[in-house]
Amino acid sequence: MDNNDGLMTVNLKNKTGGSSMKREEFLKLVDKKDFKAIKSVLNVMNVVDLADLLSELEETEAVIAFRLMEKYTAAEVFSHVDSNQQAELLNLFTDKEIKDMMDAMFSDDAADLVEEMPANVVEKLLRNMDVETRSEINSLLNYPEDSAGSIMTTEYISLAPNIRIGDALRKIREEGIHKETIYTCYVVHNHILQGIVTAKDLLTNPEDMPISDIIEENIITCHTNDDKEDVAKKFNKYGLISMPVVDAESCIVGIVTFDDAFEVLETEVTEDFEKMNAILHSDETYFNTGVFRHAGNRIPWLLVLMITSTLTGIIITRYENAFEAIPLLVAFMPMLMDTGGNCGAQSLALIIRGLAIDEIKPADALRVWWKEFRVAAIISIILAVANGVRIYFMHGRDLRISLVVSGSLIVTVFIAKTVGCMLPLLAKKMKMDPAVMASPMITTIVDVCSLFIYFNIATHIFNL
Amino acid sequence: MDNNDGLMTVNLKNKTGGSSMKREEFLKLVDKKDFKAIKSVLNVMNVVDLADLLSELEETEAVIAFRLMEKYTAAEVFSHVDSNQQAELLNLFTDKEIKDMMDAMFSDDAADLVEEMPANVVEKLLRNMDVETRSEINSLLNYPEDSAGSIMTTEYISLAPNIRIGDALRKIREEGIHKETIYTCYVVHNHILQGIVTAKDLLTNPEDMPISDIIEENIITCHTNDDKEDVAKKFNKYGLISMPVVDAESCIVGIVTFDDAFEVLETEVTEDFEKMNAILHSDETYFNTGVFRHAGNRIPWLLVLMITSTLTGIIITRYENAFEAIPLLVAFMPMLMDTGGNCGAQSLALIIRGLAIDEIKPADALRVWWKEFRVAAIISIILAVANGVRIYFMHGRDLRISLVVSGSLIVTVFIAKTVGCMLPLLAKKMKMDPAVMASPMITTIVDVCSLFIYFNIATHIFNL
Repeated sequence: MDNNDGLMTVNLKNKTGGSSMKREEFLKLVDKKDFKAIKSVLNVMNVVDLADLLSELEETEAVIAFRLMEKYTAAEVFSHVDSNQQAELLNLFTDKEIKDMMDAMFSDDAADLVEEMPANVVEKLLRNMDVETRSEINSLLNYPEDSAGSIMTTEYISLAPNIRIGDALRKIREEGIHKETIYTCYVVHNHILQGIVTAKDLLTNPEDMPISDIIEENIITCHTNDDKEDVAKKFNKYGLISMPVVDAESCIVGIVTFDDAFEVLETEVTEDFEKMNAILHSDETYFNTGVFRHAGNRIPWLLVLMITSTLTGIIITRYENAFEAIPLLVAFMPMLMDTGGNCGAQSLALIIRGLAIDEIKPADALRVWWKEFRVAAIISIILAVANGVRIYFMHGRDLRISLVVSGSLIVTVFIAKTVGCMLPLLAKKMKMDPAVMASPMITTIVDVCSLFIYFNIATHIFNL
Repeated sequence: MDNNDGLMTVNLKNKTGGSSMKREEFLKLVDKKDFKAIKSVLNVMNVVDLADLLSELEETEAVIAFRLMEKYTAAEVFSHVDSNQQAELLNLFTDKEIKDMMDAMFSDDAADLVEEMPANVVEKLLRNMDVETRSEINSLLNYPEDSAGSIMTTEYISLAPNIRIGDALRKIREEGIHKETIYTCYVVHNHILQGIVTAKDLLTNPEDMPISDIIEENIITCHTNDDKEDVAKKFNKYGLISMPVVDAESCIVGIVTFDDAFEVLETEVTEDFEKMNAILHSDETYFNTGVFRHAGNRIPWLLVLMITSTLTGIIITRYENAFEAIPLLVAFMPMLMDTGGNCGAQSLALIIRGLAIDEIKPADALRVWWKEFRVAAIISIILAVANGVRIYFMHGRDLRISLVVSGSLIVTVFIAKTVGCMLPLLAKKMKMDPAVMASPMITTIVDVCSLFIYFNIATHIFNL
């Protein structure tokens, strides 16, 4: 019984004594050569859990496990295994085993595999595919990396427009088992997509009804070259399970399924997290990325921002006489810089997220700015008063120092909110990723401005 | 034709001349009293697009639109409308209309509605529900806010374990049309969940086969009180369309569908974005949140962090004599603070995201720290050398100032990476949201440490 994270697997009648298996149990059964018991558990286990189990096994042990799985289970599990292990396993598989696996695999998973494997493994893969599979994979690999074509599969049920529900059900019965999703069938005439028929409608209407009576013609589709993120967002917006992909002639060439769409959205969120925090994006997971690669992803922005910070240094040097006269001025610099950075980061985060979920559009710039302007007004006054009073009582009741700090604070908040909300909108307008306006960059910009203003106000008020 | 974002709606044979409608077209047809034309478009349009259209209409116009929709379409569209508009519409609906709508609505949507409406509207709603619907909604509302129970629906197909596929198909045909998803049927005996039967298996096997032959017993379920985020993550991990919810006695009480699960994940990501940038979470969208509410969500952390920054101020005041002797020291403060903050934010973002997608667990603390330690070593040396050389040549070839700044930089990077990776893991370990360790907080902590070290090193090297 799998009982992690408070979620449980119901398994009331399984005769093998367990619906799931840990590494130790597997190895114990292998030692006892009780392959029958292993087989009975492996073939009822969830494919994702099986892939997790395999990741804990040595490659030679994993090969044993694969040999005990049914063909379609093995293919599905294999596509969930991480790419390093995939390469090692493929080196151990026989030609016959590879051929069976590639035949059973969904075309999108097969294409991903070919794309990710090292050259020598790819050669072995291609050698063991029939012509049809090879040409399918080749055509999938030809779509641009970020396109809908790159995440689609070519397995789907197509129906002629002039048949009855009973015929459709018979066709599904014959073909369905190998198709990625059968819950939506595509009505196709001369390769051109006419509409969809859902399994729900097929199941809940009489068998002699023509499918033209239940066809939905007003459906959401995408083009092979559409950005895969836009496609994924539509899945989310419309709650879709699958979406047909058509070419320029409205011919259906494949379908995208919801699991692949949500993987795209998840990767996109990770990328936003990275970019917003000045890290270059990498497709690998945290632990799978080496130390040098991690450092390489982080150094470029750190160096750029470090150099930009010297700008702030230059401003400070220009006003050396100001803090030589009043050293206390230095003590408020971190507070000013930090508050400015935080205010900017707040606006930035809200706008980037709003853009990501399509609530905010570049055309809303003025509306966003007006909102942020009023928010800045409220925030800056509260912060300035709180700060001014504190400074007045803690630093010798000199109203001038309160005025300098609070005045700078007000201007800083306005600058930070404006920069924080406008830069991502500007980036989006220029067809760049808004998250490229990382909050460290906003912080640096705001730093320069706020210190410049701070020392200017100080110079005037204290007549320095 | 809907043609936004490069996605298109296929509509080849629609006789109404358009599968979608904009506000102007709707109003023009209302003016012409051509309700037949409106009706034919409304009843083929996608429900999400319909909700978008309604959001652009005045309430009295929207009511006209609702009256022209089929009962089930109207109910589904209504659950996609934003809650302010829902309340206004409910005030305009007749009792009969409300009753029809509530009957046609899925139980989870109805419960959400009751939860979000103001008291006077709730009264009207409850008055117009039959006893059964009311008790269903009441029981759904009794589940804790963040539990699986709160996002489940009570509409699903249940099958007895001793029937044949043909009987199952007949039952789906009778009941299916009103059930939220029919692609998974639940095999239930004495209220206890025995397993599932997928529509795929029902469609692709002979009608006289007993369903016990195709039942999957090894399934993923959740408990009513499980955290809804954990449930949503399992949807993602296993690529599920729906998941049964069981109570402590293994009795099935409802199902969660993938669209609700992904909404949970999306809200969670937004919350992480907000928390990580020192904003209190609000359930409203950016534009729906008023200016005062926006300010209220942002001020608390700004105030806290502003006060914490005074700590940095105190350290600076303590070392006044150091920068009075060497004013140049002040010029490098922003660079040190910014770089420290950025290094911390990088680690923080990677760890929070890793925790969110379950790649990193609190038990990995040591492994994470060792990785970050080595990354810090590489980064700090590169930054220190680049910086040291620059300072040496730009500031009078005094090796001591280079040593002070670069030395502080190395220590700062190590502290920032350690704090940035450890605090979120510590929060998670203490069952708190790791994103509560917002990067502004990390920045403040790192600021205090780095300036303290900086002035200490300076004092020693320059014998101040």
